[in-house]
Amino acid sequence: MEQKPRVSITYCTQCRWLLRAAWLAQELLTTFEQELGEVALRPGTGGVFEIQVGDELIWSRKQEGRFPEAKEVKQRVRDRIAPERNLGHSDR
Amino acid sequence: MEQKPRVSITYCTQCRWLLRAAWLAQELLTTFEQELGEVALRPGTGGVFEIQVGDELIWSRKQEGRFPEAKEVKQRVRDRIAPERNLGHSDR
Repeated sequence: MEQKPRVSITYCTQCRWLLRAAWLAQELLTTFEQELGEVALRPGTGGVFEIQVGDELIWSRKQEGRFPEAKEVKQRVRDRIAPERNLGHSDR
Repeated sequence: MEQKPRVSITYCTQCRWLLRAAWLAQELLTTFEQELGEVALRPGTGGVFEIQVGDELIWSRKQEGRFPEAKEVKQRVRDRIAPERNLGHSDR
């Protein structure tokens, strides 16, 4: 059976960003309950807030200059793991 | 640099156990912020609720017949990744 994709969220512990990382993890696991193999929460430091699908970086707070909305993360994850899926009115 | 340990929590999506799995993940990441490499949330089915440290199963709802308290999970994780650590009054 083909391995389902993995998402990882690396967050800065010094900045106390665990809660928003865990919130986004739950949003992704709710929306992509069937498609995702796992979502991993990874403590980091130095202002890091990065989301990866497998080894591909799909969001970096440093590059984007801000945190993502849940909708943005879901769209970027959807584009990589289930391109045909329609995310419905709230996350289109 | 030696790889930090990984904890995974596999939970039943049919039973709606994402929230308690995410809660325990945040408890572990708060208590073991420096010691853990990651905590992975893994959707499953059929009443599964299992916690592993690396490949070692440290809690199985089916075996224990119930869910763990946060204190119990922390003690079992501590025993494997930081045996010398004192968990403080609430999680002793």
